[in-house]
Amino acid sequence: MTYCLGMLVKDGMAMIADTRTNAGVDNIANYRKLTNFDIPGERAIVLGTAGNLATSQTVMSLLTEGFTNPDTGQVESILTVGSMFKCAHLVGRAVQEAHRMISAGNAAGQAAGGGFDVTLLLGGQIAGGRLRLFMIYDAGNFIEATSDTPYLQIGEHKYGKPILDRAVTEETSLADAVKLGLISMDSTMRSNLAVGMPLDLAVIRRDAIKVALTQRIETGDSYFESLRASWSKALAIAYQAIPAPPYPMG
Amino acid sequence: MTYCLGMLVKDGMAMIADTRTNAGVDNIANYRKLTNFDIPGERAIVLGTAGNLATSQTVMSLLTEGFTNPDTGQVESILTVGSMFKCAHLVGRAVQEAHRMISAGNAAGQAAGGGFDVTLLLGGQIAGGRLRLFMIYDAGNFIEATSDTPYLQIGEHKYGKPILDRAVTEETSLADAVKLGLISMDSTMRSNLAVGMPLDLAVIRRDAIKVALTQRIETGDSYFESLRASWSKALAIAYQAIPAPPYPMG
Repeated sequence: MTYCLGMLVKDGMAMIADTRTNAGVDNIANYRKLTNFDIPGERAIVLGTAGNLATSQTVMSLLTEGFTNPDTGQVESILTVGSMFKCAHLVGRAVQEAHRMISAGNAAGQAAGGGFDVTLLLGGQIAGGRLRLFMIYDAGNFIEATSDTPYLQIGEHKYGKPILDRAVTEETSLADAVKLGLISMDSTMRSNLAVGMPLDLAVIRRDAIKVALTQRIETGDSYFESLRASWSKALAIAYQAIPAPPYPMG
Repeated sequence: MTYCLGMLVKDGMAMIADTRTNAGVDNIANYRKLTNFDIPGERAIVLGTAGNLATSQTVMSLLTEGFTNPDTGQVESILTVGSMFKCAHLVGRAVQEAHRMISAGNAAGQAAGGGFDVTLLLGGQIAGGRLRLFMIYDAGNFIEATSDTPYLQIGEHKYGKPILDRAVTEETSLADAVKLGLISMDSTMRSNLAVGMPLDLAVIRRDAIKVALTQRIETGDSYFESLRASWSKALAIAYQAIPAPPYPMG
């Protein structure tokens, strides 16, 4: 499992992912799921993956080595495409290409079955364009975060969604977005063992055209530990402050 | 969809369920999913259902009309069984019997496929026994809430779980359990349209052998509205009070 979250706010974009992968609860490993493609002044791109590890690693290799665009006959990579829209399209085609490669030497259709799927978050800015955040589906199509819904989630999204639904808007500051993202991640890790530490955090400021921060948050990170404790304490105080239900309970 | 939650704390048990059913998002209706079987002084039982409406209504009819126990040859109903353990077993057999009835006149195995499943929460106390809370699976087997995990959920359980994981223990008061349950329900309704108002709430106090409260909470209920608003406000204050992340964000 994985939980990866991207938030696009007025000052920039933050993406947070856990690092746990598992093939059953008895086979757990750590893999980085957040990757940066940073050429300051030209492009700043962050990619997060969720789903089948073989497929997502194949997608990452295709995106970095490059592969042929059938429309133009040219080899394109995530470091050469000219806009974030073209980049989202490239990632979608890389997912389709990864499925084609895996199923080519396989019994017909085997790769199309459950279990080989991936979804990705793609956020970033290429000089001349604006900062954008996309979610690419396993089919290769994609959607984009907008001011109505400024965050996108992939993987185990449910446990961590309520706090985002209540608090994240386009006007949220980047610092608050990171706080809320870490709270969302904490809620998820408490309820689903298949999402686990350490975490990776990446931040891009709008129009800076560089990755402002890549941070690994290890188990025991003092800020994250204090955020977890503060949040639990604040929730306890908050529900205790709500008056008792007026319904007659006998 | 449905969300139904049962909590077993030192003072008693509370169960909360929504009332929305849907066969697709374009076909939504309201059905009560919480039913009481209350014979004060003899038994106080609350049953919550999630899953296929045809199956769950068949289960409810079997439980109230009674059906034959193959081991004893006697007709048993939820109003005649002698203990909560026997009651959980009866509910499990009713689920199996409902599936048998539905599949009997059907192409072999059709009812065993996805979509006809139900799960139930059963809480209550029968004179001479203790207050217990069970979850009955579609297979007819069941588990029980214990002091380690004093709550059980059926249906759309993920959105509302983080607050329960953080706050509900055996020592939680009944009033706080109801508050936390309503917060959990609110978080779920905000994120999943297939869970909706009105809500049904039932409370049984330990060793009272009667249902202390059955309450329908309608849209606009002043307590529930103020709880929702207080909680959202408290969360906003809580995350804003957490210091900004120390990671250098450019």
